Amino acid sequence: MAQILEFKVTMTCEGCSGAVNRVLSRLEGVSNIEINMEEQRVYVTTSLSSDEVLAVIKKTGRETEYVGTKPAP
Amino acid sequence: MAQILEFKVTMTCEGCSGAVNRVLSRLEGVSNIEINMEEQRVYVTTSLSSDEVLAVIKKTGRETEYVGTKPAP
Repeated sequence: MAQILEFKVTMTCEGCSGAVNRVLSRLEGVSNIEINMEEQRVYVTTSLSSDEVLAVIKKTGRETEYVGTKPAP
Repeated sequence: MAQILEFKVTMTCEGCSGAVNRVLSRLEGVSNIEINMEEQRVYVTTSLSSDEVLAVIKKTGRETEYVGTKPAP
């Protein structure tokens, strides 16, 4: 079932958020991505586990941590 | 034998270059990294192939291409 995973990700410019968006949009099983740079948050609607998504975000070289999950509306 | 691989990488802020530096410095077989953000270049002294290093840079979500190789001094 799809759920929305929330991650804290350090992003300082549009290049940073664009890079995160790009790697996540390439993932199978991700249906939506929302990035709030001001709050340093990335919301991923997906059937993947938080560990799987976290591993991909880490490969961008950014500081990141998993914050929590809520059900997709 | 160690060689210096040159890559063009799109980087727009210190966060961008820091992220690239971070993923490369985690790699086994990389002995030096130099980043010139003004010229959008990353120089990697390594025993790895250009394809291996390119794949890691791509995972950061940035536009990148391999430029060329020169022998390490």
